[in-house]
Order: sequence, then structure tokens, then C-alpha cells
Amino acid sequence: MQLPPDLDETLRRALTEDVGGGDVTSVAVIPDGAMGTARAIAKTGGVVAGGPVFERLFQLVDPGLLIRWIVLDGTSVSAGHVLGELRGSARSMLAGERVALNFLQHLSGIATLTRKFVDACEGTGSQILCTRKTLPGLRALERYAVQCGGGRLHRGGLDDGVLIKDNHVKVAGGVIEAVKRAKEGVPHTLKVEVEVDTLEQLQEALDAGADAILLDNAGLEVIKEAVAMVGGRVPLEISGGITLVNIREIALAGPVLISVGRITHSAPAMDISFEVMPSG
Amino acid sequence: MQLPPDLDETLRRALTEDVGGGDVTSVAVIPDGAMGTARAIAKTGGVVAGGPVFERLFQLVDPGLLIRWIVLDGTSVSAGHVLGELRGSARSMLAGERVALNFLQHLSGIATLTRKFVDACEGTGSQILCTRKTLPGLRALERYAVQCGGGRLHRGGLDDGVLIKDNHVKVAGGVIEAVKRAKEGVPHTLKVEVEVDTLEQLQEALDAGADAILLDNAGLEVIKEAVAMVGGRVPLEISGGITLVNIREIALAGPVLISVGRITHSAPAMDISFEVMPSG
Amino acid sequence: MQLPPDLDETLRRALTEDVGGGDVTSVAVIPDGAMGTARAIAKTGGVVAGGPVFERLFQLVDPGLLIRWIVLDGTSVSAGHVLGELRGSARSMLAGERVALNFLQHLSGIATLTRKFVDACEGTGSQILCTRKTLPGLRALERYAVQCGGGRLHRGGLDDGVLIKDNHVKVAGGVIEAVKRAKEGVPHTLKVEVEVDTLEQLQEALDAGADAILLDNAGLEVIKEAVAMVGGRVPLEISGGITLVNIREIALAGPVLISVGRITHSAPAMDISFEVMPSG
Amino acid sequence: MQLPPDLDETLRRALTEDVGGGDVTSVAVIPDGAMGTARAIAKTGGVVAGGPVFERLFQLVDPGLLIRWIVLDGTSVSAGHVLGELRGSARSMLAGERVALNFLQHLSGIATLTRKFVDACEGTGSQILCTRKTLPGLRALERYAVQCGGGRLHRGGLDDGVLIKDNHVKVAGGVIEAVKRAKEGVPHTLKVEVEVDTLEQLQEALDAGADAILLDNAGLEVIKEAVAMVGGRVPLEISGGITLVNIREIALAGPVLISVGRITHSAPAMDISFEVMPSG
Amino acid sequence: MQLPPDLDETLRRALTEDVGGGDVTSVAVIPDGAMGTARAIAKTGGVVAGGPVFERLFQLVDPGLLIRWIVLDGTSVSAGHVLGELRGSARSMLAGERVALNFLQHLSGIATLTRKFVDACEGTGSQILCTRKTLPGLRALERYAVQCGGGRLHRGGLDDGVLIKDNHVKVAGGVIEAVKRAKEGVPHTLKVEVEVDTLEQLQEALDAGADAILLDNAGLEVIKEAVAMVGGRVPLEISGGITLVNIREIALAGPVLISVGRITHSAPAMDISFEVMPSG
Amino acid sequence: MQLPPDLDETLRRALTEDVGGGDVTSVAVIPDGAMGTARAIAKTGGVVAGGPVFERLFQLVDPGLLIRWIVLDGTSVSAGHVLGELRGSARSMLAGERVALNFLQHLSGIATLTRKFVDACEGTGSQILCTRKTLPGLRALERYAVQCGGGRLHRGGLDDGVLIKDNHVKVAGGVIEAVKRAKEGVPHTLKVEVEVDTLEQLQEALDAGADAILLDNAGLEVIKEAVAMVGGRVPLEISGGITLVNIREIALAGPVLISVGRITHSAPAMDISFEVMPSG
Repeated sequence: MQLPPDLDETLRRALTEDVGGGDVTSVAVIPDGAMGTARAIAKTGGVVAGGPVFERLFQLVDPGLLIRWIVLDGTSVSAGHVLGELRGSARSMLAGERVALNFLQHLSGIATLTRKFVDACEGTGSQILCTRKTLPGLRALERYAVQCGGGRLHRGGLDDGVLIKDNHVKVAGGVIEAVKRAKEGVPHTLKVEVEVDTLEQLQEALDAGADAILLDNAGLEVIKEAVAMVGGRVPLEISGGITLVNIREIALAGPVLISVGRITHSAPAMDISFEVMPSG
Repeated sequence: MQLPPDLDETLRRALTEDVGGGDVTSVAVIPDGAMGTARAIAKTGGVVAGGPVFERLFQLVDPGLLIRWIVLDGTSVSAGHVLGELRGSARSMLAGERVALNFLQHLSGIATLTRKFVDACEGTGSQILCTRKTLPGLRALERYAVQCGGGRLHRGGLDDGVLIKDNHVKVAGGVIEAVKRAKEGVPHTLKVEVEVDTLEQLQEALDAGADAILLDNAGLEVIKEAVAMVGGRVPLEISGGITLVNIREIALAGPVLISVGRITHSAPAMDISFEVMPSG
Repeated sequence: MQLPPDLDETLRRALTEDVGGGDVTSVAVIPDGAMGTARAIAKTGGVVAGGPVFERLFQLVDPGLLIRWIVLDGTSVSAGHVLGELRGSARSMLAGERVALNFLQHLSGIATLTRKFVDACEGTGSQILCTRKTLPGLRALERYAVQCGGGRLHRGGLDDGVLIKDNHVKVAGGVIEAVKRAKEGVPHTLKVEVEVDTLEQLQEALDAGADAILLDNAGLEVIKEAVAMVGGRVPLEISGGITLVNIREIALAGPVLISVGRITHSAPAMDISFEVMPSG
Repeated sequence: MQLPPDLDETLRRALTEDVGGGDVTSVAVIPDGAMGTARAIAKTGGVVAGGPVFERLFQLVDPGLLIRWIVLDGTSVSAGHVLGELRGSARSMLAGERVALNFLQHLSGIATLTRKFVDACEGTGSQILCTRKTLPGLRALERYAVQCGGGRLHRGGLDDGVLIKDNHVKVAGGVIEAVKRAKEGVPHTLKVEVEVDTLEQLQEALDAGADAILLDNAGLEVIKEAVAMVGGRVPLEISGGITLVNIREIALAGPVLISVGRITHSAPAMDISFEVMPSG
Repeated sequence: MQLPPDLDETLRRALTEDVGGGDVTSVAVIPDGAMGTARAIAKTGGVVAGGPVFERLFQLVDPGLLIRWIVLDGTSVSAGHVLGELRGSARSMLAGERVALNFLQHLSGIATLTRKFVDACEGTGSQILCTRKTLPGLRALERYAVQCGGGRLHRGGLDDGVLIKDNHVKVAGGVIEAVKRAKEGVPHTLKVEVEVDTLEQLQEALDAGADAILLDNAGLEVIKEAVAMVGGRVPLEISGGITLVNIREIALAGPVLISVGRITHSAPAMDISFEVMPSG
Repeated sequence: MQLPPDLDETLRRALTEDVGGGDVTSVAVIPDGAMGTARAIAKTGGVVAGGPVFERLFQLVDPGLLIRWIVLDGTSVSAGHVLGELRGSARSMLAGERVALNFLQHLSGIATLTRKFVDACEGTGSQILCTRKTLPGLRALERYAVQCGGGRLHRGGLDDGVLIKDNHVKVAGGVIEAVKRAKEGVPHTLKVEVEVDTLEQLQEALDAGADAILLDNAGLEVIKEAVAMVGGRVPLEISGGITLVNIREIALAGPVLISVGRITHSAPAMDISFEVMPSG
């Protein structure tokens, strides 16, 4: 579980987006040397993700700020919990506040929703995977947040994993041909995973030597049969229409990998406040 | 209502994020010259936003693709509606599919949720505003989507508008002092808006000559009194805890501007599919 | 009064422009470890602007340089005044000298010329504004220098303020229609300023509810009448053909805001020398 | 005489600086499809420089604009002369107007002032050189403008020419030692030029085999003697305190190269207007 | 086999590196409108790689150049073969010549050397792999050139494949523990390959369920035994001290994957000339 | 002898190229806090170049690493020599290892080959020059490595020196015309060097006042005659087909400057290993 190597660049871009030519209000209203303290406080319960992001962002705004982050990423907190504290220039705090919260609330929202799906699979041996359905520009951080929530990573992009989707299969002319081409053409370091819609296709995938199989939009009975057919020889991934209502019965049919788009593309932000007090 | 000037840069960054060194799967599985057609189809109802973004993204992927986008941004569609069509290299379509959908689904999700809040205010004279609670790196596009849904813009960042928030007021030592400093210090082209929590502060803001007032986290009765006190002399903005349940009574108490963070930070993605068929 | 957030980037670009692949002369002529001291000295009188820019530039060239900047930005100095001193690697000083002076002389030239216009308005209540007639790539720094000279800021660009110019009025079909559209279309945080050429247009602007008015290229009598018509209800800005000869009578007709393009686009550089002495 | 290879980048940066997130005024006031024509007109006489820059800038703003530039760079025009015309989207014209003029007026100002110095040397065989005293970020374009005015180029930066300045001489311990080190250390493709303040130093420079000599801040008699001593064996450059008043007598004492900082660092902008008319 | 998505960026950087502020010589010596033809000719035999790179580079230099590239990448040519032709501005050809050749000669050098290793394995079923021992900034193009020579790709970087090297094994405390951790921790789309030095370690790798095994620096007898032990269940990669002298006996011991660092880090450039002739 | 000013940028780009989204293997296999020591050891003899590059790279990877680099650049070492040591986070070492070695091995390979050519000229007064035949993106570092090997620099690119090549001469219509144009057109700080193929052309070059002459592809007798004709008045550069076999007789015919493309475009990497050991 690692923050992305280009974190600073992402944070600087976000600061430029919000602060632009400068914080007109604070420059006019807050005296240059005014000092303050600030606290980030959970306003609802949830799983925190993005503490180090929050810290790093304020360091970029002003290296003179003292930041004490309290809650480890991945921790479940309840409303009212103090997540972290700052001390230093009031102008600097106000300049970074919104961007810092935008990251923290979004990432914690993802971790919180992921955790719910993970908890629903508890004891089943099945695992939650993220997908490539992420918000543009935020994928690496969102994948980090998914891990904070207990989810596992899928491939990070088109260049670091092979997944033959239904659209590929149609153009290639079938599962068998598609898997065959992939096994010949891709580096030996990558597994060849193929998406199937039916048990017939699943059998073809197994016969063609696929290293992993994604079964999309299948009903519970079909999933059960698929698990039996695969027999643990290769990873079996399930996707499509997964909700907190239906996930446990799918998880119990496994063990399978369950990929859930909504943990990244539709997680509501966790509500977190930021309160500044003038000091000495 | 305008797309951001740096759209291409945002799209290129998103493509790099997803495609990186290249689409390993398609290069292996899809023959170089294979042609196809594709359609983007709404899988649920909603308000579409991001058509030109979708088009431009595929142009960047491959200028040879023929793209026919059908539905104007801001249009409400129902499930099954065909939003647009592509024709050309199958590899190019598959390379751009995910990123294009990630933008389209997110922006349409925002437009859809915004429209619900806008509709709830219908006939009241009150208007919906977006906030700075946006996802880092996506603010300009999200503001565009809010407008597609019928919302209005607030300031775009710290550098193009003045909003004296509660944290500023505390550090500055009161509403009156804060407004006074702002009126002296900021360019004459900017209005001075100040956030107040009570009717006492609101009176101070009026006395100090604030050009606009944001009343945060107030109950309905207080809002009504505030509207009366302001008497239409300056814009009155309401924020805090706005939901689809309570918004209409607030809107009716106005006319006011109602700013809603969740239309950008917590809008669930609209579900849209992308189906490729091999051709010729 | 604040330095631009992207100062380092501007300085690095300037260093790359001048130093490129490296200082061929110094590498050949100056021994690697040679130490020196240097002084920046005003060769003519003027108002200094850019001290922190000068300092930061040398820090970027070589963090090992000791820099003691003496004169606060905005200070008026006479010829011979020592502005600052350096101590450290002779090569580093020589590598940064020209770029540092290019910034310092240009910004001080702007502050010096601005101060002359500001002084000419002394006691009138009228104020000097800068414009968007700045040298490409240097706007933020030039605006900073204008403030060092006692001038005030206008909007920073097309995106952080509304100014309906004569060209807009012509295309929109009149002052009234243009102001009406702007008041409906722009965020409530921005004032709507409109440029007028006649007192008839000025009356239209007032009637349409413009939040500020720019009267361009008017004679003194017209300006006086305009001041009377506006009656202090909104800011009145005067521009066009302002010189050190005619500014005071305009200022006395006010109080008005007087915007002067030449303080940024035509300010001659202040003459400042840089003298290095070998040490130890 | 060539435009800089990175022109587009410079123009894009200037557009971003001015337009930022978008032209708030035009989007609100000018209908999306409104068309217009525009003309750039000299308001004073001068030497035009930057026509292709003006054209390219508007192409970057909107490739659909039709631009007819009329006056070749380096041409002397009088007040009222139409320099170029545009036809197309009114919004696009208004978005690019200020930045285009900022470049055109600055570069034409440099060409105009350079031409005055060049004309003052007419028939003498002496030539005008620019220096490294340029405005940060604009050096390549300013050098282009100097050539439009009839001036010649000096080295472009610290990496493409050798000039041992007085500060180098002091640290190196004398003219002879400095020239010797340079001749040993720099690529054989570069001449070694050295700055001298006295005729004694000039003799040392000649003895040490300097390939060119810069005589700084010398009086007319000393310059005459220097010309005689050098006898045309190497280029002799004169600098320091050059004005339109004293340049001709210096030029007549030559032929010499005369480098003039003020043509780049202190040239007043040429006044050029931009008038838009609605069309169709 | 695909050119890298960021090819243009790599080419532009290379042009900036060589051309910088402009081609001083050509601007002075070649008239602006001078036209010419040019031919790229092999001066020694070899396998060509980089034709499309050569073409694209000249398109970036000057879109007006007509380029006819003749020889497909991967083709073996002998000395004297004409590889491609250009027609157009002489200045443009001369500006791009050196950079275009630097790419073409380097990539063809790699393809030529790779082909020799591939030919030495002919009929054995063993294959040549590239490594991460590439020249910084050129990896994607070098991998492309390896494929032109008939080699196969290994992982592209640390982020798109798992290879547990000897240094990892030492720190992790053994092959078994390292493979176990990797299988738990990495996405299910990646195979887990581990480097072993002995047959004991190889057995551990098999027992631990490694998906691929790299046997480093082993003698021929050990390699043969390793092939027998692995029995085709997983890919077996051989590396270390591979030369054109010893490769065939290793290949015959297989089929194995043979990774060779020197095809990228030490391939001598192929000699190719570029001859320009003035035209009409 | 100086490292390029943009070294950090080059190193960061190389790290991004190799590490991308993160080191999947180490994150899974090496515990977060695991510490280690590492040593870089020469596996063959050679001249080391790039020690500071190696150091700086690891500082960028992890400022917490302790790096003790032992061997000064330009030093000749034999196999088994320890070049440098690291202490710190095992993950950080493994993340930087490959990129650091790729630089170090390439640059040391260049220095080693250059030294052989330099040694072959010992005592002759002739000197080795590098050329523009460098690997794209690595020129500045390769020029540094050439100097580590005892070679001298030629011009760095098309913008910092004049070299009229045979292709220029053909288009310009002869040596005399080409030299004349160059002497008129280029800054007085640059020498005008011209390439000639025959003694007739060489005489033309001398007559035209060329400041340096490059004689390409000439036999030994012609070179001897050329040396006599030039008589030391200007630098004479020899190029074309220079090998370790024939260079000494050419060097003895001088003193001349001998430019050798292969020291940069075809130097085999020096073999250097990197061994990590876990520590306490």
C-alpha cells in the first residue's frame, strides 16, 4: 500500500487549480503574520484515507506549518473524532484548507464504501477488487484509498495487465482465438485474463489456457456453476451489478474476486470539517 | 457555458494515466487494421453532460475516428437512449473507451443530480450554485456539468472572487473588520461576500457594506428573517445541510442562491455502456 | 501585496533562457572554488521593487550563497545606495547576475514610474490602477511592482473580473443590453464594469445597474460631469491618454480610479549595477 | 532573422496568463456564434515587428479565424496605417486581442527604438548590437525585434558565446590570465571576447590573443585610440552610456560594434489599436 | 509492435536538445527558400529500425517536407541501400538531419544486434528477450527496436511486472518467503517471476508456485537440468554472460527465454549517411 | 567539466520511465522498514564517469539514503574495485538500482572508450573531440563523460557554434560563398568553421577567412599536407573513419583536433554490479 510517486505533482496541480494567482480574500483580510491553530474533525463516521496526502499538501503550501496527523489511514472513526491538527500561519491554513479537504473527503469516502463491501464478504475468502472506473487524474490515489478500505488492486491501466473484454472478443472472433493471440503476444510476465458472459465461453477460456477469468453480469446460479468448473485452477473474477445487498451470496459462492466499479466512481464524500482558531 | 481552455491537457493526462506505455491487450488481440463501430448508450435515465469531452477524447486518441455525437449536453434522456456513435479503428476505440466513459459518466452524474436540485426550486426564483468542493483536477469540467444541469457558478477559486468565511472572520476579529479590510484591499472589480452564522452577524455585514452575504447552517425561520433583513439589496446565499427533502422550503423562503456541495463531491456516476461491433 | 505563487517557475524559466547548457565563460575562467562578494547598487534614484525576487533567484542558482538584501520593496532610494550584498561562490554569482538584474531593473522601473503617477494624485483621493497591458509572462510580477509603487490592482485577467469594453458593446448592441447580459450570466461574486465613451452611455450604464464604470478618452469637462452623474454610487474609472502632465487635474476632478497602461508596458528600466570582488 | 522555435509555447503561456479559466465577460455578453471583423491600426509612427507573432497567436486562440496580415516586419509605418485584419468569431477576437497587442506593441517598440540607433550610424560602417539585458522570458522575441529594427545579434546567453566581463577579470586576476584560461577551456568553435576598461587592458587583451574586445564606458578619445590600436584585427565592441545624442560620433570613430541595452530593456511600447465591428 | 504513445514528446525534446534557439549556421548560409532533396543511405549492412521515427521527426521539424520512407522496419539491408528520401526546404532538412540519424542509427544498431542473437537461436524454440538495461529516456523506442530485430519484450518497468531478483531474495529471507509474499500482494493479473542462482532455489521456486523462473549465471549443465526440472510447467528464463558464441548451445538446451542486456546497452550504431542535393 | 543544469529533470524522467506507478515487486516482497547496505563494484576495468549522477539519483529516490561515493570521475579502475556504498531503506535501493546503473554503466563506457583514443594521442599535441552523434536526451551527460575520459568538447548543438557542413556547402554553392555568408550573418562571438573534403576546398576556406576548418574523410597524406597548408593559423579538425588503429598516425601528423563519433554513439557499457545485503 503505497502513495503514488507523482503525488507532489498531483497536489501542486490541485493547488494551482484552486489558488491560482493567489488567495485574494486572505491577503486582504488576514494580517501577514497572523498565527492560528486548526483541527480536522470527522462529522460522520467512516474509514479515513488520505492523512499523508493532507499532510503533504499543507507542507507544499507552507513548509513552516506544524502538522500533527493523528489517525492512521484505514482506521474506522466515528463522528467528532479529531483527525489531525495544524499550527502556524493562518493565511497558509486558509489557502490549503479546501484542497486538503477535497482530497481527504473523497479518499475517505472511497475507503468507507470499500470497507462496507469488504465487511460484507467477511469470512468467505472472497475479495473486493477495484476497477479502471476511476475519476480521471485521481486513479493512483483512489486505488490507494481502496486498499485503505481493505480492497485489492486490479491492473492499474491498459499497460500493466491483460484483460480481454467482451468488445475484444467480438472483434477477435471468439474467446479461443483471443486468448491464443494474447498468450503469444504479451510479455511472459503478464497473466492473460479474459471476460466471459456464459459458461460455454468460460469453458473455452479454460481450454485456451487463460490465466484468469472474469465472469460478467451472471446470476447466482451461473456463478456457482462457474466456480465449480474453474475448480480453483485460475482466479475467477465476478463483476456487474454488485451491490451491498447481493454481494454476500456471491462471495459465499466462491471464493472469488469481486470487482466493484462504484467504490471509485460513485462513493459519496465523507464529511469532515476544518476549524481554525486565532492564536497568540 | 464553456468548456475549459485546457481541456486537451486534462484529456491527455487522463489518457496517459490509463494507457501509459500502450494497450497491451489490444495490440496482441486486435489486428492492426481491424475496423469497428461503437455506440454509447444510456443504461439509466439522466441528464447528459460531456458529449464534446467524449468526442474530443477520441479525436486525441485517433484523428481518423468518425464520431457522431447525438445528444446535446443538458438534455434529459431515458434508459436505452443512444448518445453517440463511432466508426473506425477497433484498437483506437478500445484504447479510448474507458477514459471517455469515466469522464462522461462522472459529468452526467453531476448534471443529473444538479437538475434534481434545480427542479426542486422551480418557480421560486431561487437558484442552485456549485461550490469549491470539487474533485481535484476536475473543477472546470465539473462546473461545466453543473451548468448543464441548470446550476449557476460560484467563484472558480481563491483568486477570482472574495468570500470571507467563518475562519477568516474569527482570525480577523469580526465581520465588520473583515469586510472593511476586504473592501479596501481587493480590486474594485470584485464583490465582497461574507459568511455569517447569525442574524446579528448578518446585520453587521449589511452595515459594513458587504456586497453579498452567505448564511451558513441556518434553520428555516432564520433564513426567512434573513431574507427580510436583506430585502433584496444584495445577493443572499444559503448553504449547509441542503438536501432534496428540505431545499424547496428554503427556495420558497427566498429568492436566494443555494449552494450545494454534494452536486460535485458526491454525485454518483450515470451508467452508460459502450458497445463495439466489428465491421467490414 | 504578494509575490506570485509560481515565482520559482518564472525564475527557473528565466535562468534556462540565459544560462542554457551552462556558463561557458565562468567554467573556463573562474576556478571552481573561487569565492567572492558582490553588491547591487542603485546607479540612479528610484523606487525599488523585486528584492525578494533577486534573493530567490540567487537561492535557485546556488543555495550556498549568503544573501543580505537591505532595501524593502517600495522604498525610494537615491543613486549610490547599496541595495543588497552576496557572499559565496564567484561562479554562482556570475551565473545569476544578469537574470537577477533584468528582473530587478524592470520591476524597479515600473515601481518608480508608478510612484510618479501616485505622487501626482496625492491628497486627491484618486488612485492609480494598472491594466492588462503588461509584458507577456511577467504580469503577476509587474502587478506586484505596481503595488510597490503605490498603485492598485485592476482585474488580473479575463477570468477574474468583468469589464465590458467598447468592442463588446458594439457587438452586443449597446451598453444596456451588454450590462443586462453580464448581470445575468456571471457569478454573483463579480462586479459588472462597463466602458463608456459618452455621458449618454454613462447614464445608460447607471440605469442598467452597472457595478462600476470606465470612462475612456474623455476630456476634463466630461470627466467632471461624469463624476457628478455617478455621485459616488459606483466606482468611476478613467483611462486614455493619461500623462504626468494631465493626471493631477483629472485626479482633482474625482475621486476616481485612474488606469495607466504605460506604467507596465513602457516603464524604462532603473539602472542598477552589480559589482563582484574576489575574497579570501 | 528567425522566430524562436518555441514560439507556440511562449504564446500559449501568455494566453493562459491572460485568459486563465476563460473570458467571463465575452461568454456572458457576446452570443456564441456572433461574427465580426477587426483591424489593427498604428496610432503612432514606428517600425513594425511581430506580425507573424500576432497571426500565430490568433491561430492558437481559434484556427477558424481568417487573418490577413499586411505589413512586413521591419517596415516603417506612420500613424493610421492598417497593419492587419481579422474576420471570424467575435468571442475569439476579444479573447486574443490584449495578448496579441501586448506582443505586437512591445516588439514594435523595440524595433522602432533600434531603428533610430541604426539610422544614427548610417554610413559609418558601425553596427548596433543587442545585449542580454532583455525582459525575462522574452529574449528570443526581443532579439528578433532588434533584427527587425536593423540591429545585429550578440550572444544569446551564457552558453553560446564567451564574454569575459570585468567581474570575471577581477576574480581571475587580470585580463591576460582570464583570456589564457578561456582559450584553453572553451570549445574551439567559440571566439574569446574580453571586456576592458582601459587602453592598458586592451593592449593586454590583444597580446593574450583575444578574438574580440569589448571596451566599456570609455570616452570618445579613448575609443578613437582603441580603434587605432586594434587596427581591425579583431572586432571591437563599444558599450556604456550610449544615447541617440552621442552614438554618431562613436560610430564615426569606428567602424565598431555598439551594444545598447536600452533597445531591449527600456523601449516604450508602440501604440497600436484594435477595432472590432460586428458583421453579418 | 507499436511505437510509444509519447513519441512526439521524445522527438521534441531531442530537437530542443540539438537545435535549441535555432540553427545558426543554416540561417546564415542557406537562403530562406532554398529547396533540396535528400537521401538516407545504409553505409553498412544491418536491420533497419526507426523509419517511422525518422519520418515523424522531419514532420515535426517542418510539416511541408515530403518524405518517402522506403524500407520497412525489421528489414535486413546491405550497404548502399537507399532507406528513404526527402524533398523540400533545405534548411529544414539540415535542421533535422543529425537528430533523425541519431535515432535511426541507434535503433537500427539495436535491431541489427538483436537479429544476430535471434538468428543464432533459429529452430530451437528458444527466444530472445530484452531487459531493463536500456539507455535512460529511450526505453520504449529501444524495446520497439528489439522487436524489429525479432526479440520479445520483458516487463517494461518496475510497475508492470513482477521479478523477484537476487537482491530481493536476500532481503526477504529466501525464495519461498519472497514468492509467497508476492503471490499475496500483487494484482492477480501479474505473474510472479523469481530469480534463482541454484537448482535448489529453483526447486523452491517451483514448490512456492512461482509463475516464471529466471536462472541467472548458470553453466550449460545446470541449465539443462533446470529445463528438465521445470518440465515446461512455467516459463524458464536464462540470463548472464550470454554471447553470440555461447547462445546457441543454451538455446538448444531449451526451449527457454534468453534475456540479453547488451542488445540495448551496448549495441553499436548502424552507419547511415544523409546526403542533401540542392534542387531547382 | 560540469554536470548539466537540468540533471534533476533528466534523472526524474528516467525514474518515471522505469518506476512508473511504483515498484510492484518490492512493495509486496520487502517489508516497509527493511534496511540494507549496497555496493557498486566494477566487474571489468575502465574509466569511471557518473559518480555524482549515481549519487544524485539515489537522493531523488530517497533523501534518507546515506551514500558514500568513493571513486572520482575520470579515475581508471580495475575489476573488483568498489566504487561506492549505500546504506538505508532496502526498498529505496532496489527502486533506484537499475536506473542508477544504466546511467553509470553508459557514462563509464563512454569515458573508457574516450580514454583509449586520448591515450593513443599521448604526446602528439593532438586532441580528441566529441561530436553531435549522441543518444537523444543524453547529450549533456555524454559530453560530461567524454571530458571524464580526457576528450574535449565540440559545439553543443546547432545554436552555439557554426559548422558549415558539406551539405551546406552544396546548397550554398561553394565554400567561399558559404563562409562569406556565415561571417556576415552570425554573431561576432562565434567562429566560422567549415567542412572541406579536398585541399582545394581547404585553400578556399583559408582564403575566405574561415576561423576553423574540418577536413573530413581524408587519407594520411592529405592530412599531412593540410596541416602544412593551415600552418597553425586556425584550428584544423580531422574526422571520418577514425579508429584506435589509425588514430596515432593522424595525431602525429598534427597537432590537430580529431573528432570521433563512436565514443558517444557506440561505446559499450562498462560492467558494474550492485549488491544489496540486508542489515540489522
